[in-house]
Amino acid sequence: MTTPHRLNRLLEPIRAEMKRVEELLQAGVARLEPPLCAMLEHVLAGGKRLRPAFVTLTGKLFSRDTSPFVHLGTAVEMLHTATLIHDDIVDQSALRRGRRTLHTVWPVREAVLAGDHLLAQAAALVAALRRPAVLEVFAETLCAICAGQIRQTSAEEGRRRSREEYLRSIEAKTASLIIGALEMGGLLADASADQIAALRDFGHGFGLAFQIADDVLDLSGDEVALGKPPGSDLRQGVITLPTLCHLERGEDEDVCAVLAGRTDTDAVDAAIAAIRASGAIDAALAEGRLHAREGQRALGGLPDNAFRRILHCLADYVVGRDG
Amino acid sequence: MTTPHRLNRLLEPIRAEMKRVEELLQAGVARLEPPLCAMLEHVLAGGKRLRPAFVTLTGKLFSRDTSPFVHLGTAVEMLHTATLIHDDIVDQSALRRGRRTLHTVWPVREAVLAGDHLLAQAAALVAALRRPAVLEVFAETLCAICAGQIRQTSAEEGRRRSREEYLRSIEAKTASLIIGALEMGGLLADASADQIAALRDFGHGFGLAFQIADDVLDLSGDEVALGKPPGSDLRQGVITLPTLCHLERGEDEDVCAVLAGRTDTDAVDAAIAAIRASGAIDAALAEGRLHAREGQRALGGLPDNAFRRILHCLADYVVGRDG
Repeated sequence: MTTPHRLNRLLEPIRAEMKRVEELLQAGVARLEPPLCAMLEHVLAGGKRLRPAFVTLTGKLFSRDTSPFVHLGTAVEMLHTATLIHDDIVDQSALRRGRRTLHTVWPVREAVLAGDHLLAQAAALVAALRRPAVLEVFAETLCAICAGQIRQTSAEEGRRRSREEYLRSIEAKTASLIIGALEMGGLLADASADQIAALRDFGHGFGLAFQIADDVLDLSGDEVALGKPPGSDLRQGVITLPTLCHLERGEDEDVCAVLAGRTDTDAVDAAIAAIRASGAIDAALAEGRLHAREGQRALGGLPDNAFRRILHCLADYVVGRDG
Repeated sequence: MTTPHRLNRLLEPIRAEMKRVEELLQAGVARLEPPLCAMLEHVLAGGKRLRPAFVTLTGKLFSRDTSPFVHLGTAVEMLHTATLIHDDIVDQSALRRGRRTLHTVWPVREAVLAGDHLLAQAAALVAALRRPAVLEVFAETLCAICAGQIRQTSAEEGRRRSREEYLRSIEAKTASLIIGALEMGGLLADASADQIAALRDFGHGFGLAFQIADDVLDLSGDEVALGKPPGSDLRQGVITLPTLCHLERGEDEDVCAVLAGRTDTDAVDAAIAAIRASGAIDAALAEGRLHAREGQRALGGLPDNAFRRILHCLADYVVGRDG
């Protein structure tokens, strides 16, 4: 069974809600004027919608009417997509999810504004829920994501980052929005403070595992599965966990050459081969599994039902432990 | 009396609140990490703080405790500044308020993120007010600004815009946030629907007058007063009201040459001279004064006190009618 099928099967109990999220995303785009409409349609296509799934699952977990959760999930996906638009501009990425990035199809300046518009739409959706505490988390989450990105961008030049810096960076870049999605869901469900802490802890473990798995895939996957050539982090001089694990076993000429700026295909292929041969991929994946496990442990503080089990399975799914 | 002094004198009754806005802006920046902190300090310097003044005046107009209005005003100034950061990137502007624009001092990619961060900070401040209706207006206003900018950016190439398109563009770019600031202030003050409509109408007239005056200044002012060379709109092929008024009196070779892409100093100077000589500057300014007057008429629906008189005077001030 291929991975997306497996995910669809896991999310089958919330299929109606996930369909509603798609409809809301479409509706938000359809009422816009021509250039903006086409831009956002382009950029919203093809996501896994994991974050809306988390928000919806939180509502289900506490047996709430899911309508506001579907709206919140849509807002979170819009926020996520807005940050992707700006990140792709910042990182000068040409491809995402196998499609051309927005700023390579439309002018960069229009892409910046399309990202802003999507942020504003997301904020409007959250505001319409009339739950200020939810919106505070929403705004703080965006702050954390931006601060993390600026930290990474401004620190990147020349210096090799430590494992601590790597973890801090993926916390801000990926875990923060997953934590935020679950926390906002918990607040909307009127969960207790302890339950919200448990949701956050799950999100933290899941988020780190998710990004580590993604970083592993960038080095272990092939171009067809990735939708872009492997080694894109390496090519940009970004050290992720598998590379860190590899370099901790001793310096490596091939990898250092790429990090120093040799980014032709031969050099990158040699570096990827060296990392794959050293067992660093497995070491990184094992670390990702530890984080997933940590997230699963936090689920103990939440109502024990079918939706909690889905959260548990999603953490297995994300680190490829679900067969 | 120079213009900024005149403004300070007009705003004397809310000096304490305006000082508090500065402190909140500083505080928001000071707690950030190094690159972001320096970037936002740079970009927040030197604004006239008109939008926080409007928010504060609305609170005073309805005799409310001004503390939440000061927070809201700070958020509006942050939102405004965030849009300026992104606009300057979009327009590739090198100077603003006589200072270098953010993306010319720091990398463009960090400037994009700094703008996002400021948007997020603004949303967090509004969320903390716990007045969802205010936040809805905040988010809708940001949507309107972005949509307007995209419309302008994507329509600019080659085609000459009509007076209607010009008005629609300055409505989105400038009036919308001033209208939004006054509407949010009115909501926070629990003003009636009629009073909020009056505030919006005032904001609409003031906003149009304000942008027209600014567009006039770009053609009538000198480099010292402007903090950048005059004719910057023209140089970018953007037709503003004075140029529209000028072209309505008949085609002009000098102006058409610049709009067609001849942007050397001699060409731009010749075009500016032609516009100045034709009486188009006065015609545009007269139109700006009509909008200011329209805004002032709307004030009739609001409590008659010293703060309403300040709003009236600000509309005179902005079109230079206050001597």
